[in-house]
Amino acid sequence: MADDRLAAAAQAAAEGFAAELAQFVALPSVSALPEHRGDVARAAQFVADRLRQAGMPEVTVWATDGHPAVFAHRPAPPGAPRVLVYGHFDVQPPDPLDRWQTPPFAPEVRQGLMFGRGVSDDKGPLLIAIRAVGALLAAGGPPAVDLAFLVEGEEEVGSPHLPDLVAAHREALAADLVISADGGMWRADLPSLTLGAKGICGLEFTVSTAAHDLHSGRHGGGVPNALHVLAELVAGLHDAAGRVSVEGFYDRVVPPDTAERRQVASLPFDEAAYLRENGLGAVTGEAGYSTLERQWLRPTLDLNGMWGGFQGEGSKTVIPCEAHAKVSCRLVPDQSPEEVLDLLERHLERHCPPGAKLEVRRSPGRAQPYVLRRDHPAVQVAAAVLEQVLGSPPLFVRMGGTLPCAELFAQELGAPTLFFSFAVADERIHAPNEFFRLNRVAPGIRSWAELLRRLGADLRREGTRR
Amino acid sequence: MADDRLAAAAQAAAEGFAAELAQFVALPSVSALPEHRGDVARAAQFVADRLRQAGMPEVTVWATDGHPAVFAHRPAPPGAPRVLVYGHFDVQPPDPLDRWQTPPFAPEVRQGLMFGRGVSDDKGPLLIAIRAVGALLAAGGPPAVDLAFLVEGEEEVGSPHLPDLVAAHREALAADLVISADGGMWRADLPSLTLGAKGICGLEFTVSTAAHDLHSGRHGGGVPNALHVLAELVAGLHDAAGRVSVEGFYDRVVPPDTAERRQVASLPFDEAAYLRENGLGAVTGEAGYSTLERQWLRPTLDLNGMWGGFQGEGSKTVIPCEAHAKVSCRLVPDQSPEEVLDLLERHLERHCPPGAKLEVRRSPGRAQPYVLRRDHPAVQVAAAVLEQVLGSPPLFVRMGGTLPCAELFAQELGAPTLFFSFAVADERIHAPNEFFRLNRVAPGIRSWAELLRRLGADLRREGTRR
Repeated sequence: MADDRLAAAAQAAAEGFAAELAQFVALPSVSALPEHRGDVARAAQFVADRLRQAGMPEVTVWATDGHPAVFAHRPAPPGAPRVLVYGHFDVQPPDPLDRWQTPPFAPEVRQGLMFGRGVSDDKGPLLIAIRAVGALLAAGGPPAVDLAFLVEGEEEVGSPHLPDLVAAHREALAADLVISADGGMWRADLPSLTLGAKGICGLEFTVSTAAHDLHSGRHGGGVPNALHVLAELVAGLHDAAGRVSVEGFYDRVVPPDTAERRQVASLPFDEAAYLRENGLGAVTGEAGYSTLERQWLRPTLDLNGMWGGFQGEGSKTVIPCEAHAKVSCRLVPDQSPEEVLDLLERHLERHCPPGAKLEVRRSPGRAQPYVLRRDHPAVQVAAAVLEQVLGSPPLFVRMGGTLPCAELFAQELGAPTLFFSFAVADERIHAPNEFFRLNRVAPGIRSWAELLRRLGADLRREGTRR
Repeated sequence: MADDRLAAAAQAAAEGFAAELAQFVALPSVSALPEHRGDVARAAQFVADRLRQAGMPEVTVWATDGHPAVFAHRPAPPGAPRVLVYGHFDVQPPDPLDRWQTPPFAPEVRQGLMFGRGVSDDKGPLLIAIRAVGALLAAGGPPAVDLAFLVEGEEEVGSPHLPDLVAAHREALAADLVISADGGMWRADLPSLTLGAKGICGLEFTVSTAAHDLHSGRHGGGVPNALHVLAELVAGLHDAAGRVSVEGFYDRVVPPDTAERRQVASLPFDEAAYLRENGLGAVTGEAGYSTLERQWLRPTLDLNGMWGGFQGEGSKTVIPCEAHAKVSCRLVPDQSPEEVLDLLERHLERHCPPGAKLEVRRSPGRAQPYVLRRDHPAVQVAAAVLEQVLGSPPLFVRMGGTLPCAELFAQELGAPTLFFSFAVADERIHAPNEFFRLNRVAPGIRSWAELLRRLGADLRREGTRR
């Protein structure tokens, strides 16, 4: 099959893409919010239909105790290597709603960018992968591999049912390589391949200091205030040098080696532009590391939410009896989510003052940190494809984000995961005014089709840890 | 007029009180919430009607740019001393709603206690004062004083329009003494008179760190988190000894003298019972002072609300770009609200780290600290009345709470304020399950009637500051 035939088929497969993506984004498939259960199910059905249209002969919706997942399969002759494509159709909650320029579930295209919740994470990149199958078949070149898709509906809540699902369907999902349509390139103007992702774990904690809110006139100055206690605990999670203060947090961290730091330092990073793009006044973080090192190579701890007391208009002179915080940590090799949660919980208990009660609820979503070897054959093929389609060799980067399933696939299927997404890291995922670049659609479809065509016999079961 | 005739009239005036109070409490007159504007107006009308029924010949509803106030007047022969009764018909917001055993605006009586928002602060005590006028007239003894009422609808939002109202009606409100139906006795089993109240001031501040929320995977570890900044600022408002860390906060504080501390130390205070009643695990506060000293004699700073980021079910891995806090301070002589706000704002600005933007909004409600001299003639009469009706001489106490109008009356009318409320400090005001003791109604009406009968020529214009 000539390359130009595939390029033409990819171009054809890009037709009507925006309209279909807009339909997909209009489904408010927010997995975190129970009231959107039906919408998540409708998004599953949407994905199943698209997979069938693209030419996947077997498509099934798998129920779980939470949201469903979609499985699709296209067999190849025995002995062909097996590739599993991963993605997700659920999205983050859209709040704060008042910060969106246009409604999050009424997608709009402005200057080549489509705006809407989930358009970049992960609906646009997923649809690219699906349409690539159609393009490859249209060009007359069926994939050289046994091809399966697993598209889940719980990624944004930490994939709580994915481990059981994968364990239950280990045969159907068996793969030599997983390719993820989730993730994202580092910059829009330079191709990149992400060779590592952080792990994640989190918890919510509640501080209570009294049976009910107390009047600040009657009791002020004499009783603990849950907000003060919470603020002290939160402030105590980092030290003055920006390091996480949780005892033992860094014990298992593999320090970045000189080669790694040199590679990161060689990457173009325009701090002024970064600050401007995000409306930031300064970068901050752990002393002794650059911004990229902090984001890619070092473990972090962030508060995601914090609240207590009166939030309405005006004033209410109460001493709140309860305060809440949500915390999550991004982990690097060889930290383990469970151990970090243990350390964090112990730290909070140790620092909770007398007169305050602490209640900790661990979040179900967890992931191990993950790294893919640069000399893995899939990385070699992917790099060649990106160079061919996008015109320059890719940068090799790591991501601060998490792909909760990568470690799971390594453990359960023995397969490494290659991140191959056409999202870009600046597309405001998880934030208001999330967008996706529509000029990435055609090269994205072509690259996926090329990748699926070229991956072949050199795919071997390879180790997934460095 | 014989004392037993007044006692009988007071008893008669207590009939039907609970039903009428329940009607009053059922009006959700929450001054802080715009959607209750109509309810606040209805509460004003309710008060006006009750004052007319009690025998006040002139009753007017005064409009303001905010909520209305009610004025009533019953003239006496020229030369009679003038007494102004103060109270309020607005209430605090009822949230958190899920902590109420019965709905806040569907008052219910359980074991002699009426439960509902505003029943103790200040609807029950106010209705007692109004009915006392009726009892006094029914017993054939009109007040020996020229009597006026000023009942406002903005006490719970800091009385923003009261200063203009009092200035505009200085003639009509001219008084030798103000008696407040707002306030409360220290304990249910011991009469007490409150001879001082704290001042108050407050502000809300917002910390912003970016133009929008950022994904904690992409940006975590490299950018400021508004919640971390806020927590640091809040934690930095107190030092390890429980003192307020705001530079200059204590500069104008008059330290309690030995006599004052000895008097407080002599009061019965059962710490174990206090902890039990409020579900507290410990008392805390400024080192070197007892709980009562902290609450009555020392200035305090409390967070009333704090929020930012994701508060819903589940998790959302954002780095929030904005966080908010509401702070209020209780002040003692000779602190000034404006000066403390200046100090607090300067402190926050000085400690706000690079990369974070601070926005401060001062709350409109402010009050000077206030102290009434123990040898004032009104204090003497009030003490005698309480001893006669309740059977033992009152304790003299101070309160941690604020009566924003007391200093205003001192400034504008040159009149001191006597706190004479039959609420008790443990009645969960500003909190869920606020209640009022119905067995205080009859003695309350009788005491008010006695007080209005006995106050006389010995009322002179007296200084209001110690």
